[in-house]
Amino acid sequence: MRDLVCEMLRLFYDKGWVSGTGGGICALEAPGRLLLAPTAVHKERVRPEDLFVVDPESCRVIEPPPDASLRPSECLGVFRSIVLGRGAGAVMHSHALSSVLAADLGGPQIAVRDFEMLKGIRGVGNRDTHLIPIVENTPRESELVGQMDEALAQDRYHTAFAMLVRDHGAYVWGQDAWEAKRHAEVYHWLFEGVRARAR
Amino acid sequence: MRDLVCEMLRLFYDKGWVSGTGGGICALEAPGRLLLAPTAVHKERVRPEDLFVVDPESCRVIEPPPDASLRPSECLGVFRSIVLGRGAGAVMHSHALSSVLAADLGGPQIAVRDFEMLKGIRGVGNRDTHLIPIVENTPRESELVGQMDEALAQDRYHTAFAMLVRDHGAYVWGQDAWEAKRHAEVYHWLFEGVRARAR
Amino acid sequence: MRDLVCEMLRLFYDKGWVSGTGGGICALEAPGRLLLAPTAVHKERVRPEDLFVVDPESCRVIEPPPDASLRPSECLGVFRSIVLGRGAGAVMHSHALSSVLAADLGGPQIAVRDFEMLKGIRGVGNRDTHLIPIVENTPRESELVGQMDEALAQDRYHTAFAMLVRDHGAYVWGQDAWEAKRHAEVYHWLFEGVRARAR
Amino acid sequence: MRDLVCEMLRLFYDKGWVSGTGGGICALEAPGRLLLAPTAVHKERVRPEDLFVVDPESCRVIEPPPDASLRPSECLGVFRSIVLGRGAGAVMHSHALSSVLAADLGGPQIAVRDFEMLKGIRGVGNRDTHLIPIVENTPRESELVGQMDEALAQDRYHTAFAMLVRDHGAYVWGQDAWEAKRHAEVYHWLFEGVRARAR
Repeated sequence: MRDLVCEMLRLFYDKGWVSGTGGGICALEAPGRLLLAPTAVHKERVRPEDLFVVDPESCRVIEPPPDASLRPSECLGVFRSIVLGRGAGAVMHSHALSSVLAADLGGPQIAVRDFEMLKGIRGVGNRDTHLIPIVENTPRESELVGQMDEALAQDRYHTAFAMLVRDHGAYVWGQDAWEAKRHAEVYHWLFEGVRARAR
Repeated sequence: MRDLVCEMLRLFYDKGWVSGTGGGICALEAPGRLLLAPTAVHKERVRPEDLFVVDPESCRVIEPPPDASLRPSECLGVFRSIVLGRGAGAVMHSHALSSVLAADLGGPQIAVRDFEMLKGIRGVGNRDTHLIPIVENTPRESELVGQMDEALAQDRYHTAFAMLVRDHGAYVWGQDAWEAKRHAEVYHWLFEGVRARAR
Repeated sequence: MRDLVCEMLRLFYDKGWVSGTGGGICALEAPGRLLLAPTAVHKERVRPEDLFVVDPESCRVIEPPPDASLRPSECLGVFRSIVLGRGAGAVMHSHALSSVLAADLGGPQIAVRDFEMLKGIRGVGNRDTHLIPIVENTPRESELVGQMDEALAQDRYHTAFAMLVRDHGAYVWGQDAWEAKRHAEVYHWLFEGVRARAR
Repeated sequence: MRDLVCEMLRLFYDKGWVSGTGGGICALEAPGRLLLAPTAVHKERVRPEDLFVVDPESCRVIEPPPDASLRPSECLGVFRSIVLGRGAGAVMHSHALSSVLAADLGGPQIAVRDFEMLKGIRGVGNRDTHLIPIVENTPRESELVGQMDEALAQDRYHTAFAMLVRDHGAYVWGQDAWEAKRHAEVYHWLFEGVRARAR
């Protein structure tokens, strides 16, 4: 799982989703043990031993990496909300420009329809109008949690496996790292698609 | 041939044509034996032993992969129509955004002209107006077959080695995997080209 | 030199300049011995032993590749004009979409100015207005030679190391394979630049 | 450090920032010893032994590379200004089209705001309006120094780790090669972002 998390970070970097040390990832290694990438590092260079193990309930670090200079991702609070609130086994945080431009198109949400790629989201069909919530950006990532919890609680977003943050990026999740990867690819495709059709 | 099919999937993934587990491929290994990628898997990770062998006439699975959790691609019905109706030896199914945006430009077809790249399609010249049929999307891939058979039967599409599906993607084929690859590269180039010229 | 020619083809393929078996390359191995890629093959798969050796004066094949199914590039006539008329040691033929869209902007030529990248062309400064000739496409590549010779003979194009072919692509050359690579990178950058500024 | 400098050049080449032999890099190996890439070479092919060691104060070459045909980067004067004036440990020079198009949007500067990615710049927050100076291009790179020194001296640019050169590209720096890489990724993302939002 540690290797897989690092492989995902390299893949996301190659796609331009976690450049400039931005973005992040977490994935459950076992119940109660969430692997978490460090903050402020070049994400494509993260090694398996650089990951934190944290308790997703309390957000306490169970096992820090041997490199004492590393700090856990600032996304931890948001990741916790998604892991606990949605039963997600893995969450990725994207700084893709396409996610920022997609959020530019919407108010509190964007509605995505008329794309077969919607079927790549668990439980969604290609005839559905899929709503993705947008929350407003805050100075610090931890301050996003309140808005996020509110959005995640709304029934109209119950099929969403992604949340946009205005001017910032997106959070995308799945039941495990593989589903999170699939959903990340699908949602980023859709972000490009809605932008292309809006122009 | 199994290795080649998997190599093609990795290549198509790198080009953004089969992301999010979407898209697919089939290729004749021998007469009556069609290699088929599984559905709902990360296409760039498909291994040679993951391929199904199906009878293209009956669509029955002749040899399933050892991994019992795999299911054959939903494209099988469409692939069958193209293999039997066009004598194709290989068919790829693309979820490229460029194919969706190209279909947005047309009604029941798009007309492509004034591109040297047309010569990359077998039997087509750079002075030809090349018609690519567009069929309407359906909830399930298997339901595309009727429209596809109708389009393939029309004389004006007899030079086409590709078919667009609105909001969805494209099918591209050739007499073997290599010609399907060449045609896929040519058609995707043309999808980008017609979009760029329309803006 | 054979390895380098094949490496260049792989590089050009990765950049999208020779997809769908289009495009090509030639380079002088020694005086009177021009290495030439075969036509109608996947250019990124060309092996050193697949290259033809041709006499650039007579266009006769001096040494064919062992694989008897290979045929020399149709660009041979154009390549000959550039090698003899410009003293080029290597010429690449691009099917990049950016080159087609750049040619869409011009009549018999495009004028490129106000780009530092112009300094990447031998003998050109960043205060110069650099003219790139555009010739009209023809059904067969060999029929381009007359127009090309005419353009190459014009004094206003004496600093050009590239020629555009409408709806088709570009030829880019240099004194050797490395300068041809540098010029190819510079000109394709400029094709993107003039298009971006025109929109 | 020599290996890292060459790795960065390959990375920047893959991103399209130093194509056509353009662009460059320098990094302090030790106080008073600045590693400098050669000019007029394919930057992705630079080997550790091809680097110059120069004195950043006097700009004199301390150790030339064994290959006597190599000449030090023309950026040396600009690099010196940034290393001495900003205490930078590494500076990269980009020829990315995105940097040229970003400079097209501004007069003597561009103002970047409403992007989380701003937090990737040391000392900058996502609520800040970040000013990036633009200097006018000159026939030779060494002639940029005067304008650059003037811009670097202005208080409103004291948070900038980048400077745009009209029609030309950008200089991006950091306290070491890793911060320069992070800043390069952040600024290029922002160049794309401001362009996308302006259209």
